[in-house]
Amino acid sequence: MSELAATSELLRKAEKLDAADELGALRDRFVLDETVYLDGNSLGALPAHVPDRLADVVRRQWGELRIRSWQESGWWTAPERIGDRIAPLVGAAPGQIVVGDSTSVNVFKALVAAVRMARETGGGPDGAPGAAGGAPGASIGEPGGAPGDGPRDEILVDATTFPTDGYIARSAARMTGCTLRPVVPGDVPGALSGRTAAVLLNHVDYRTGRLHDLPSLTAAVHEAGAYVVWDLCHSAGALPVGLDEHGVDLAVGCTYKFLNGGPGAPAFLYVRHALQDRFDSPLPGWNSHAEPFGMQPEYVPAHGAPRGRVGTPDILSMLALEASLEVWDGVPIEAVRAKSLALTDFFLECVAAYVPAGRVECVTPVAHEDRGSQVALRCPDAGQVMERLIAEGVVGDFRYPDVLRFGFTPLYVRFADVERAARVLAAVLGEAVLTEREGRPEE
Amino acid sequence: MSELAATSELLRKAEKLDAADELGALRDRFVLDETVYLDGNSLGALPAHVPDRLADVVRRQWGELRIRSWQESGWWTAPERIGDRIAPLVGAAPGQIVVGDSTSVNVFKALVAAVRMARETGGGPDGAPGAAGGAPGASIGEPGGAPGDGPRDEILVDATTFPTDGYIARSAARMTGCTLRPVVPGDVPGALSGRTAAVLLNHVDYRTGRLHDLPSLTAAVHEAGAYVVWDLCHSAGALPVGLDEHGVDLAVGCTYKFLNGGPGAPAFLYVRHALQDRFDSPLPGWNSHAEPFGMQPEYVPAHGAPRGRVGTPDILSMLALEASLEVWDGVPIEAVRAKSLALTDFFLECVAAYVPAGRVECVTPVAHEDRGSQVALRCPDAGQVMERLIAEGVVGDFRYPDVLRFGFTPLYVRFADVERAARVLAAVLGEAVLTEREGRPEE
Repeated sequence: MSELAATSELLRKAEKLDAADELGALRDRFVLDETVYLDGNSLGALPAHVPDRLADVVRRQWGELRIRSWQESGWWTAPERIGDRIAPLVGAAPGQIVVGDSTSVNVFKALVAAVRMARETGGGPDGAPGAAGGAPGASIGEPGGAPGDGPRDEILVDATTFPTDGYIARSAARMTGCTLRPVVPGDVPGALSGRTAAVLLNHVDYRTGRLHDLPSLTAAVHEAGAYVVWDLCHSAGALPVGLDEHGVDLAVGCTYKFLNGGPGAPAFLYVRHALQDRFDSPLPGWNSHAEPFGMQPEYVPAHGAPRGRVGTPDILSMLALEASLEVWDGVPIEAVRAKSLALTDFFLECVAAYVPAGRVECVTPVAHEDRGSQVALRCPDAGQVMERLIAEGVVGDFRYPDVLRFGFTPLYVRFADVERAARVLAAVLGEAVLTEREGRPEE
Repeated sequence: MSELAATSELLRKAEKLDAADELGALRDRFVLDETVYLDGNSLGALPAHVPDRLADVVRRQWGELRIRSWQESGWWTAPERIGDRIAPLVGAAPGQIVVGDSTSVNVFKALVAAVRMARETGGGPDGAPGAAGGAPGASIGEPGGAPGDGPRDEILVDATTFPTDGYIARSAARMTGCTLRPVVPGDVPGALSGRTAAVLLNHVDYRTGRLHDLPSLTAAVHEAGAYVVWDLCHSAGALPVGLDEHGVDLAVGCTYKFLNGGPGAPAFLYVRHALQDRFDSPLPGWNSHAEPFGMQPEYVPAHGAPRGRVGTPDILSMLALEASLEVWDGVPIEAVRAKSLALTDFFLECVAAYVPAGRVECVTPVAHEDRGSQVALRCPDAGQVMERLIAEGVVGDFRYPDVLRFGFTPLYVRFADVERAARVLAAVLGEAVLTEREGRPEE
């Protein structure tokens, strides 16, 4: 088929897909222009009603009610209230999620708490040799039944993780007297042992877009008597997670990607109901006290999700997030997943049709069960190519050293955007080849 | 003098003081009404220009530029840029303060780092017995010269602290293998020993308003070869702190009280220049990496203040704070301190004139050198009294169990407000006595 014929056919296909898209009208809930925005997996677009809502928070709640807003405007309970709003999107019953702090800080809380659960020290000093007990009593679907009864002194971390999880895991290991062992997620089952205290995994790989098998990996960790912490940064709001269904112990995630909460919006922390009374936070700030205004010198942890809180919540960012989450009203996450797969399928089809063979290599798995909501293409000059794409109105991410990353937010990305992105990519890559040739006359 | 004569005299005095107040015009920089707002030491009032500035951040920077704003709108460098804006208010040269996270989280960073400095372990496991070395080499005005050379295994914490510092200090002690010893600030010099690794102190007591002697306590801690962390929550923006001048090692503080940054605005962390290369953070998130976008699996800490960063900063709260700080343009902190003392002096004078003797007990020191920017009055029914005061348009804080707390923000509190607050207080206390009598007819 000629290039022109291919273009004409894919344009028609995009038009049909958009016309049939049940989620198509949701795009009107966002502030968008003619830019093809494929970076919602880095910073989600602005929901249209948020500016007015935040203006009310600033002018009336802060400006007029001032200190009274901690009670009257519901500021104090915002972390757990907004957590409950996120809960259905990640398959969690209410009362298990709090919002606050950054993802990095929440990884620290969750991982240290997981190690402590595995050891059941009950508040003793961390890292003291011999403080580690055996695994807790086993029950179906819960950690336990570990082989051996030696100390739990190892943390496994996803070797392909977004770096911050690895850095924080190293600190958590250092401060709990554990060794840290980086392992590719697929190799985790073979790496687990009676020494494993906790495992930190990414649900979707930030670079390749690979979706890891949360149910089977969670089960494997539990079989070894260890606890698992899932990082949902690239899956929350993009696909069903099923935290409760799969018996996940702890999870963290950010809210500024597929959840559209705004730049640097506070992250969330999930602690399974059954583990909440054993959640022993390394950051026991006054907001997590059973009686925060009792001003007691002794720390008594709150029950439930608020135990994951630390200090005073950043209300402006937090209430912008709360307003943002309203775009999810009436949107089933299963429909989001179906559209996400259709978008990435279509992008791969357009890239195959437009981009000369061999010019880019797709590092995102083709199988649906292994794919998140992004497509990552490797090409040697990825940094420059992304700059040109952005200049042409197609916004994705460059991820060092050689990856072009395109995120597909089903709430507002259209199939027509997908076709255009692939078409512009092909043009930029053709141009890049020319520049490369022209740029080397002396060689 | 009759009550009426006293009132008339104090009203005239307030009028004169307001007329002579060089900072009086600053009140116009804030959104205020006829409420007497004496709770700026809990949540500062809204600066008038902030709503429009934040609207621009939301609508244009997030809504239109989206991901580009991390560079084009200066989001990425906001934590250190805003830190430099706070620096002159606390007597710090540029490049030593970053903004981000809550005060509680920053206390954890600072205190763990202080213990590590005292031990100079250089990255080994925390809490391992014997890992602790002696004090670092002594030099004038620096920690060192400690008696003995045993392990540094004790943290001293202000026994009268706002509770969160105590809770976090206990966690820091637990995770570094230290014991925690609560000590009243005045007793710290006598409690220091060759075992002391770090000392966490409040500059101004949140309950009593007592101002502690930062220069002499810092010197005492250094003489013992230990490191000091100062909590400036109730002094930053209220009085000169002189961090550099007095050789403070580390400091933290919040920005939503006297700095008016907005509800839950991000806190700040100060690490003295000379210690920055030894600042070994327990929360080494990707934002503190030397090359944050290099996506390297190994952690290499950034130089300078950014080493205190952790995860992605909460931009909306942070840029609201940045805008808020403009109210300080051209305002010398020495003038703020002078007015603060005049305000609290005048309040004490009015309370003495209006409130029947013995009805309240002032727990704030009378000596200027011992007084922060608040007045705390103890009375048995403080909770109910504060409720009535608020209903009458005089807003202060109740602090469990029996303290009425009145904060005086020199940027916007008038002497007329002070007189009215004391007058309403006297009326409410008179009323309360009546109610108390009437409420117990059966006894």
